[in-house]
Amino acid sequence: MNRVLKTLSSVVVLLMLPLVASMLRANSASAAPPNVIVVFTDDLGYGDLGCFGHPTIRTPNLDRMAAEGIKLTQFYAAASVCTPSRAALMTGRLPIRNGMCSDGRRVLFPNSGGGIPASEITIAEALREQGYATTCIGKWHLGHLPQFLPTRNGFDRYFGIPYSNDMDRLNDAPAGRAAFWQPESRYFNVPLMRDEEIVERPADQTTITKRYTQEAVQFITEHQDKPFFIYLPHNLPHVPLFRSDEFADKSERGLYGDVVEEIDWSVGQILDTLRELSIDQRTIVWFTSDNGPWLSFDSHGGSAGLLREGKGMTWEGGMRVPAIAWWPGTIPPGQTSLALSSTLDILPTSINMAGGEVPADRIIDGYDLTETLKGNSDSPREVMYFYRGVRLMAIRKGPWKAHFITQGSYAGDTNPKTHNPPLLYHLGIDPSEKWDVAKDHPDVVAELIQAVEEHKKTVQPVESQLEIPLAAGQ
Amino acid sequence: MNRVLKTLSSVVVLLMLPLVASMLRANSASAAPPNVIVVFTDDLGYGDLGCFGHPTIRTPNLDRMAAEGIKLTQFYAAASVCTPSRAALMTGRLPIRNGMCSDGRRVLFPNSGGGIPASEITIAEALREQGYATTCIGKWHLGHLPQFLPTRNGFDRYFGIPYSNDMDRLNDAPAGRAAFWQPESRYFNVPLMRDEEIVERPADQTTITKRYTQEAVQFITEHQDKPFFIYLPHNLPHVPLFRSDEFADKSERGLYGDVVEEIDWSVGQILDTLRELSIDQRTIVWFTSDNGPWLSFDSHGGSAGLLREGKGMTWEGGMRVPAIAWWPGTIPPGQTSLALSSTLDILPTSINMAGGEVPADRIIDGYDLTETLKGNSDSPREVMYFYRGVRLMAIRKGPWKAHFITQGSYAGDTNPKTHNPPLLYHLGIDPSEKWDVAKDHPDVVAELIQAVEEHKKTVQPVESQLEIPLAAGQ
Repeated sequence: MNRVLKTLSSVVVLLMLPLVASMLRANSASAAPPNVIVVFTDDLGYGDLGCFGHPTIRTPNLDRMAAEGIKLTQFYAAASVCTPSRAALMTGRLPIRNGMCSDGRRVLFPNSGGGIPASEITIAEALREQGYATTCIGKWHLGHLPQFLPTRNGFDRYFGIPYSNDMDRLNDAPAGRAAFWQPESRYFNVPLMRDEEIVERPADQTTITKRYTQEAVQFITEHQDKPFFIYLPHNLPHVPLFRSDEFADKSERGLYGDVVEEIDWSVGQILDTLRELSIDQRTIVWFTSDNGPWLSFDSHGGSAGLLREGKGMTWEGGMRVPAIAWWPGTIPPGQTSLALSSTLDILPTSINMAGGEVPADRIIDGYDLTETLKGNSDSPREVMYFYRGVRLMAIRKGPWKAHFITQGSYAGDTNPKTHNPPLLYHLGIDPSEKWDVAKDHPDVVAELIQAVEEHKKTVQPVESQLEIPLAAGQ
Repeated sequence: MNRVLKTLSSVVVLLMLPLVASMLRANSASAAPPNVIVVFTDDLGYGDLGCFGHPTIRTPNLDRMAAEGIKLTQFYAAASVCTPSRAALMTGRLPIRNGMCSDGRRVLFPNSGGGIPASEITIAEALREQGYATTCIGKWHLGHLPQFLPTRNGFDRYFGIPYSNDMDRLNDAPAGRAAFWQPESRYFNVPLMRDEEIVERPADQTTITKRYTQEAVQFITEHQDKPFFIYLPHNLPHVPLFRSDEFADKSERGLYGDVVEEIDWSVGQILDTLRELSIDQRTIVWFTSDNGPWLSFDSHGGSAGLLREGKGMTWEGGMRVPAIAWWPGTIPPGQTSLALSSTLDILPTSINMAGGEVPADRIIDGYDLTETLKGNSDSPREVMYFYRGVRLMAIRKGPWKAHFITQGSYAGDTNPKTHNPPLLYHLGIDPSEKWDVAKDHPDVVAELIQAVEEHKKTVQPVESQLEIPLAAGQ
């Protein structure tokens, strides 16, 4: 009996089976393009998940997702705030190339008239061309006028809010931060849209994570027999924080923890649905965040763990984000990868997995990570650029990061400081950016300056979409 | 074929089997006392393992140990420096009760004449009484005179160094910190002992982790048929940092990472040996650290992750440590536990698992965590005390921590600051101790003050062992 039980519980051997399975079914996998799901959280910090070290936020579903897939510890959003970060994910291109940044406004607002240019090719457009059903569920923030909506950018369907959940504050809401500390949906006149129609205003944010989840589960169920792409940009845990009744006062981390734990539940629902429909082995799921935690919101903001600073800044805490990729049978389980990688890479990776062609008529800043995720190679990415608006602030090449300019977040110290020579940190040895070693490594500094010069040559000026005002009557 | 493979790779179901197995074999487990192994690292920080969120230190063996066991996120050493922390682990008693602290020296030195009092009952003594074979492999630091050595405190055997690896610095070694930045074993005249004899001096620290590991594997192999207790207190990653050639320049975290990755390898060797001998299901293995990271040693010190401060201090980073417990078939896999727990609890837990009696003639500050580890209950521990030497600095009860006194580390700010009312932090919401909320919670403050008063009544003055000088000729 004991023998049998010992065999049964030998997790070791069993954990290797997916590996074997993956080798055996390599051919069938490449034949059938995988479904792609991108779960994108808002202002979730590098340190906010159990598997990324948070001591009191419970994320069993994401921890399991990481254990069954790959945890990426050197994964970056392409900007430290919403709009440019999302534009980069959607297009595989730096915001400086597609106009989704400026030297003034950092994101789009309800009184903005701009949005993602029609000339850009989104992941949804590229995958739809490969026969994918596509849907966007959640916060768009790439333009709220009809011509910029998801439905005009490759998505068959859209359900969500067009910009941030703290916008459109009503005049009778509490002033200042009071509206955040005891948040109510009625304070923020944010519209909830289905396709191109407003179906609820103000959106009931209390149930919004639950409704996004139901929408995603339904879409998966309806499209289980053809390839699909789901882009699921949760509008939380961006302040104001909301969660449904089932998650109220459940987390030891307080309200912020409740919100993250509901998102964790949501991920569990999605992965369970894939398993139940037996399409888990032909679906890749990404989980990551649009930028670092909004630290100035105290306990209503998240944690960047051991990384320096948070949202809005080009220190690591502002742009390095937790990331997990999951594809049972293809991505070997239990990997922790130090491969340099970015939201920019999701577009080329997805297109290549789908058997399509990455656009050749423009510069794409992303790389195909397929072999990296499979554990077969280092990352093809060598460099990461850290922009704040139109300004290049820092660069990472390999383990080295040079800051040419540093600057505070939204509030407080917003005066840029120029560094010449740049501040230099070895992010392998010094992930917290504590010890400037520029003086000891003039050769590295020179190499990084050279890389910046090369990069700048590739950048052409484009019109900023963020400075375009809403025209009368729009 | 696909169906078969899908079934095979369904990690989900398989991961539950150990649970079932554990329920079925509950009786046999209680009949046979488990082997106990305690791997105790030196100055490893809360944030220094992959499974605790470090982005560049690779710890696949410890990550797997956590995935197969329980990760404890609210686990404390009983002091923020070596000697008192070790004394507490060994006896299940606060250092204030056994004299292993003082209001002067914080640890024992080569010129100390004191050590752990003979009247104390160690884990080794208690388990030996239950028929266990016992060995101590590594850094003792509870007295280097013969009467204090492991062999006089319940251990059949001893192999290791009697105090810290940075002590006994030779006069011709580089002065100040230069001896640490390019460390060589010959700078530090630390003795390596077998039982009560010095067998090597200075100890070759380069190979010391490897030799400790070999010693442990050999002991396990020799004692596979009877219950055993192995206390394995690595003397690393305490500075000066050393690793064997196989680990030189392997870690992206630099030298400190090399050292931690060799310790991770060591844990893998031990768990593999248990599996190979088919005694993994009757062995509980603990992994933790004696205190937080020595931050003043820059990149040669570790990281407390998102916790505040490090070694030497009563902020969380000084005393909260990474902890994993593993016992396949009894501790269900994949648990992350927020149960308040401590090195103090290892003694009563081990004695109860062994079928012995926890000493009833003295105050024991530990609790039996057996049911907590099995996932059957919350922690029996409600309170944690934070002493610095003989002085009670802070208390945690549930999620609340009150600091009555705060003080700097060794260097820098060493003047104690008294707080009245105490600083109050909610460690669930605010694990980084950022937001003092004492003013909002006078009832909690009163409750914690009351708990301190009750605790103080239980403390009797004892002679400090740390102030006893070495007598002439010793």
